Amino acid sequence: MASFFRVFSLRNLLVLSLALNVSLIWRVLYEKEDSEAINRPSLDNKREAFRTDSMASEAQATQRTHLYIPSSSSSSSSSSTVDSNGRDRVINLDQKVHHQQFSTIVDEVGGVKLKIAAGVGFFMLILYWDPLLLAAVAGSTTELKAEYVSAKVFLNVVAIRQCTREPEFAKEIIRLHKIVGNAVTEDRYIVVGTGSTQLYQAVLYALSPPDAAEPLSVVSAAPYYSSYPSITDCLKSGLYKWAGDAQSFNKEGPYIELVTSPNNPDGHVRQSVVNKSGGILVHDLAYYWPQYSPIAAAADHDIMLFTVSKSTGHAGMRIGWALVKDEEVAKKMVKYVELNTIGVSKDSQLRAAKVLQVATDGCKYPTSEGSLFDFAANVMEERWKLLRAAVRQSGLFTLPEFSPGLCRFLNSSFAPRPAFAWLKCEAPIEDCEAFLRSNKILTRGGKHFGVGPQYVRISMLDRDENYDVFVQRLSTIHLRQSMQVDETVE
Amino acid sequence: MASFFRVFSLRNLLVLSLALNVSLIWRVLYEKEDSEAINRPSLDNKREAFRTDSMASEAQATQRTHLYIPSSSSSSSSSSTVDSNGRDRVINLDQKVHHQQFSTIVDEVGGVKLKIAAGVGFFMLILYWDPLLLAAVAGSTTELKAEYVSAKVFLNVVAIRQCTREPEFAKEIIRLHKIVGNAVTEDRYIVVGTGSTQLYQAVLYALSPPDAAEPLSVVSAAPYYSSYPSITDCLKSGLYKWAGDAQSFNKEGPYIELVTSPNNPDGHVRQSVVNKSGGILVHDLAYYWPQYSPIAAAADHDIMLFTVSKSTGHAGMRIGWALVKDEEVAKKMVKYVELNTIGVSKDSQLRAAKVLQVATDGCKYPTSEGSLFDFAANVMEERWKLLRAAVRQSGLFTLPEFSPGLCRFLNSSFAPRPAFAWLKCEAPIEDCEAFLRSNKILTRGGKHFGVGPQYVRISMLDRDENYDVFVQRLSTIHLRQSMQVDETVE
Repeated sequence: MASFFRVFSLRNLLVLSLALNVSLIWRVLYEKEDSEAINRPSLDNKREAFRTDSMASEAQATQRTHLYIPSSSSSSSSSSTVDSNGRDRVINLDQKVHHQQFSTIVDEVGGVKLKIAAGVGFFMLILYWDPLLLAAVAGSTTELKAEYVSAKVFLNVVAIRQCTREPEFAKEIIRLHKIVGNAVTEDRYIVVGTGSTQLYQAVLYALSPPDAAEPLSVVSAAPYYSSYPSITDCLKSGLYKWAGDAQSFNKEGPYIELVTSPNNPDGHVRQSVVNKSGGILVHDLAYYWPQYSPIAAAADHDIMLFTVSKSTGHAGMRIGWALVKDEEVAKKMVKYVELNTIGVSKDSQLRAAKVLQVATDGCKYPTSEGSLFDFAANVMEERWKLLRAAVRQSGLFTLPEFSPGLCRFLNSSFAPRPAFAWLKCEAPIEDCEAFLRSNKILTRGGKHFGVGPQYVRISMLDRDENYDVFVQRLSTIHLRQSMQVDETVE
Repeated sequence: MASFFRVFSLRNLLVLSLALNVSLIWRVLYEKEDSEAINRPSLDNKREAFRTDSMASEAQATQRTHLYIPSSSSSSSSSSTVDSNGRDRVINLDQKVHHQQFSTIVDEVGGVKLKIAAGVGFFMLILYWDPLLLAAVAGSTTELKAEYVSAKVFLNVVAIRQCTREPEFAKEIIRLHKIVGNAVTEDRYIVVGTGSTQLYQAVLYALSPPDAAEPLSVVSAAPYYSSYPSITDCLKSGLYKWAGDAQSFNKEGPYIELVTSPNNPDGHVRQSVVNKSGGILVHDLAYYWPQYSPIAAAADHDIMLFTVSKSTGHAGMRIGWALVKDEEVAKKMVKYVELNTIGVSKDSQLRAAKVLQVATDGCKYPTSEGSLFDFAANVMEERWKLLRAAVRQSGLFTLPEFSPGLCRFLNSSFAPRPAFAWLKCEAPIEDCEAFLRSNKILTRGGKHFGVGPQYVRISMLDRDENYDVFVQRLSTIHLRQSMQVDETVE
């Protein structure tokens, strides 16, 4: 100890101690703000870190993160005001109408931890949504009222009736659309659903006349989303019925045409093809985000479907939203959601609001690597480049070609880089799904999408490690060794 | 500065500084543990505190709570193991089957903050689930493997196919049923749904033959749950059709009989009434919990539906579960959930698992006021006592009478205290709903439940303050002043 003091004087130690104090005080007071400081490593660093770190250590790292996100709504909106003696108050004991009070309570005890569940087929975005980083960004609170006020929202009817009363979520939907510029939100009603799949069914329910002599025809141009037929027909509804490829639809009378744009599976920007009287268009715009497609203009259709799954990657939340022009349609959609699942998970809505907020804030104050959409667009561009190189090298396949277009959000011109690759096996390969399966690559064959077996749909959103093995393997497939289908892989 | 040093020597300052360091280090390191300390006040204190505290201050209080709940599943269950060069690995790029990998990832980055959203009609349980208190209890981690192993669970098929892979949630379902003793879980498949409403539709889908000449009849004895008819018939399904009161059902051929026990709306314990060949029974046991009914024995039926909403009060989560004997039925139910909402919110499932865990732990290691069920049972008993007194005083109404029975869980004998009161207006009042509405009490009239207008259903689960005003008002209603229906209240 004596020798210790020979080296360090009391004054030295005091300075050291004071410095430590300052740093600790800083940490205690500004821990939150510190964690908000944007300190996001570059894309390459993150990818590398993600690949090499063990899952266990990552899980451990997240244990250190805990943040509080302040409850958002004012408690003054409570619907159960108490007068001094309760004499004149209406007592509502019909449970259904309690939704209104329920959600107020939840707002009051509100707050929600942002622990993100990246979702189905969106492994690549785990890098962006790394919980530690997200927690840091999410700590910031921003007042957003001005933007909210400019849009007319149907919250007082739709949201309350839907057991949601999540004005925050609606606000964040509007903010995100406004900053990305991909959809008009003015004079629209927002209907929240348990993913856009439920909203698709809600639209069918809302648009079908209840007393029609026969079910309403539902069509979409092939190749169409493979789940449309099974979802539409699973209950053999007397209200609506899947009627197949819109291009060959020639029945008279009312119908619904689904326009998926960019299209799942082939990525093309689409418009309606039927053009007959009595048709109602439903636009599934799940993939109309800058990571997949240049945002040429704000979509302005009667019924537009979106989902958190495809925009931010959080498929596990099961949250989607519809922008709907007609009030009666919106009300009937809400009624379906009420009948089907008695509203939408409150937990998921609270988190979704926060996720969208973080995504929008990231657009306003981008980091060195840009916003979520910059990040995702870069990943998609790189993946498509790799895929096209592999396809060229193998010589057995072709891919759709896309023309570049100006993206007003990313402020650059580029060709679409869809979430799926619509791969065609060239002759003599007849069954592309079976051919790839024999090479231990599982895809979904063309017949599911209303077209022939020479096509397959390939997810472009898998983890880096899987994607890399896939393109590597695709580039080296030889025709001869693979023609014999390996039955052991299902 | 010089005079400053005259009072405090360098040594004094160093000691002061070091002390400050210690306190700051302590704060940085142990902040989390501090917030987990268990400090639950008594029931009366809590009720009082809840009534007098302003919502705003409560909301503020929750801001101080942040806890981490460790991720539960081992990361060794990952389905995408990487061999050294990836040569032999199957690459799955058919998005649908990615659910399996998805959920593994979520487990790995897992953990979820327990901020509870008490739900529709369950205001009374807000007291129990006070977020601060719950956070404290939830901090404890318990190993529960032994109990889990004894039950056969269909997780590897059902849960994975359902985009859930939440073995933790299934574990907690089994633990809770075992400790409460209200349902047999052995040799059952667990199917998770977006509330029991979705599971009800999943059951109809699973039990209906896909190619039958006409829709399967669905019946339930009146008074039946008012939403059954509208949910069953909303899409005019060709698979099944609402056929009304089971007591008057006399059609030949297969049918589904819904047995809701205890019954919504009248609270009676029920058994099937049709007793014909070709019938399939579905037991809706949402209310078979000790707060509503003595638990006489573990229910042991082919298909049993439960929901978090009615068991713990967290209706906002939209989470229910079915215990199903037949594997094929369970698989078809899962298929419906996949078609309808592409699985169940991951966020909600993670929280539900934690909520059930806390409820079960509370049964094992009860506090001074007992378990959640003790707490809720006391509230219900008090409320029924108040209601019966008010009904006696007014002389205008009658209520169902129940016989006491032994509850094996609470180890005492008591009469049921249902979640709803099935109130009958006696003559000369003909329309009970209108009569009560004229007294500014909103209820749901008998016609919604398949019976006459002299009955109404009253929710017994509202907030204390509303409930108190209600019984007070009911006890003082006079016939003359109220016979004239006030049209201003809808």
